[in-house]
Amino acid sequence: MTWQQTAGNEALELDTIHQAQQLIEPYIVHTPVLSNPILNQLTGASLWFKCENLQRTGAFKFRGACHALLQLTKSQRQAGVYTVSSGNHGAALACAGQILNVPVTVAVPDNAPASKKANIARYGAHIVEISPGMAAREEAIARFQQLHPASSFIPPYNHPHIIAGQGTAALELVKEVADLDTLITPVGGGGLLSGSAMVAHSQSIRMCAAEPELANDAWMSMQRGAIQPAHPPSSICDGLLTNLGGHTFDVIQRYVDEIICVSDSQVVAAMQLIWHELKLVVEPSSATVLAAVLKHSEQFKGQRIGLILSGGNVDLTRLPWSVDRLEHS
Amino acid sequence: MTWQQTAGNEALELDTIHQAQQLIEPYIVHTPVLSNPILNQLTGASLWFKCENLQRTGAFKFRGACHALLQLTKSQRQAGVYTVSSGNHGAALACAGQILNVPVTVAVPDNAPASKKANIARYGAHIVEISPGMAAREEAIARFQQLHPASSFIPPYNHPHIIAGQGTAALELVKEVADLDTLITPVGGGGLLSGSAMVAHSQSIRMCAAEPELANDAWMSMQRGAIQPAHPPSSICDGLLTNLGGHTFDVIQRYVDEIICVSDSQVVAAMQLIWHELKLVVEPSSATVLAAVLKHSEQFKGQRIGLILSGGNVDLTRLPWSVDRLEHS
Repeated sequence: MTWQQTAGNEALELDTIHQAQQLIEPYIVHTPVLSNPILNQLTGASLWFKCENLQRTGAFKFRGACHALLQLTKSQRQAGVYTVSSGNHGAALACAGQILNVPVTVAVPDNAPASKKANIARYGAHIVEISPGMAAREEAIARFQQLHPASSFIPPYNHPHIIAGQGTAALELVKEVADLDTLITPVGGGGLLSGSAMVAHSQSIRMCAAEPELANDAWMSMQRGAIQPAHPPSSICDGLLTNLGGHTFDVIQRYVDEIICVSDSQVVAAMQLIWHELKLVVEPSSATVLAAVLKHSEQFKGQRIGLILSGGNVDLTRLPWSVDRLEHS
Repeated sequence: MTWQQTAGNEALELDTIHQAQQLIEPYIVHTPVLSNPILNQLTGASLWFKCENLQRTGAFKFRGACHALLQLTKSQRQAGVYTVSSGNHGAALACAGQILNVPVTVAVPDNAPASKKANIARYGAHIVEISPGMAAREEAIARFQQLHPASSFIPPYNHPHIIAGQGTAALELVKEVADLDTLITPVGGGGLLSGSAMVAHSQSIRMCAAEPELANDAWMSMQRGAIQPAHPPSSICDGLLTNLGGHTFDVIQRYVDEIICVSDSQVVAAMQLIWHELKLVVEPSSATVLAAVLKHSEQFKGQRIGLILSGGNVDLTRLPWSVDRLEHS
């Protein structure tokens, strides 16, 4: 039985997140939770930011990737793993592979920015360039599987081991901050959201997701009761452009109370606030959660709200606001 | 006896830093200490960053200002305080005053950037605009003293209460991270450096300071054994342009092992590394400490090094590198 075939046979339960936490503990950064008087004043709420931008490789994705590799048998680890990613999952898997001595191959769309490719390559992964788009992606996976049948494909979100790993960020947050009323994460493929929702449900915390209006397939999927395809990429939130998967959608349908859609300009305003007040470099996807609180401020007033800042991988020479160059000697 | 006259009568001892820590504990952020595998690999050392950019008001300055106000008598607090500052000390004093219910007046040079004035004003301080330069500064202090004789002048660095407050950041760092070989802070007026040096000395940790080449008055002062005047402002490190004071120089002469001067372009390179790898928004002054390690990497190889990131107050629309605007909807 290959690793991906185990997916259907494992019940996703809160316990699996606790077990994942113990497994990955020696490898992850126990990221800090920050609060900020200015942002609390601005929103009239108590905000607790779980800083996964400070996680290894600059995103929560390291949790799931690390957990997936730790669940492999010794011979599966020796045979290596592969994935398709142009972003944070690729870097996370490459880094986890480097630490756990598992050979990693990442298929990267040839239009991916050089900075993203560099971030995967620096952890020693083997990079294969493919054409962009879903068809090329599926073909790359099939070809690799044929050439390396012993290798395991590690998907970016739609697997119980990935979901359980991503859920550990929320677990750390609720252990550190008592009595949260609401937990908010961004939603892309739904790995972070579904893991977090299981934790929130166990604590009777209301679970919300923040999604870009320009990539609102999760919101549409909830409305229609079936997974809707991802929109063509146009939102600035480059981490949130994928559709949901069967595993993630199943959990999201059961445990997520509300998906709040925010415009790209609301995201940029929230991103600037986080950089300016929290002094954290976050990527646009991360800023959706604060944008959601600001958009529905009446609803959230007086609440204790946990927000997961999902990542901080930004090209510092390309920012979504105008910057004058400050000359120096 | 006015508050500033107490300065000469109080021995600066490590105990005063411990006492300051207990006094300010309820008001400050216990800032996290971060380490980063990529920066450790790059330098060949173990770096521990104490994130004072995450302190209230975005800089370590809040520690000293808060401690100074807590040392005032009830009637001194009621009479209010004043200072001259265009930057982080002004905002820190304003915020501490707001929390402790002490009226604060800040004299601000009329050429200070609007963002700095706004950062002081938002904590409810009364702002008085004055002409730039040392003469206008002295005159403003004298005039305010004459008009409000009961008010206390809270200097930015040259007072034992300020020094003791600033030293608490290093105290927290050495409590959290054992067996440091070296501690590095930036040096401007020397408040942070002298407080940190007392802590380092007590633990037999080598104390280094990082100073911009274009504002190397502390390095010159150490060479000549007497306080040298500040250079005209030209370094990008706007927090480090003041000269030392009698109290700070006294401690620095006794306990600081080395001052490392770095160029502005070395500072900018280090600042980009901190934004890119640590995912922290820091101001140029903060980045001097990493620039110093990179400049003398042979000397620091294999060491465990504590670095205090002093602040993160940056105008995000003016950065010392070229940025293209990423368009969004």
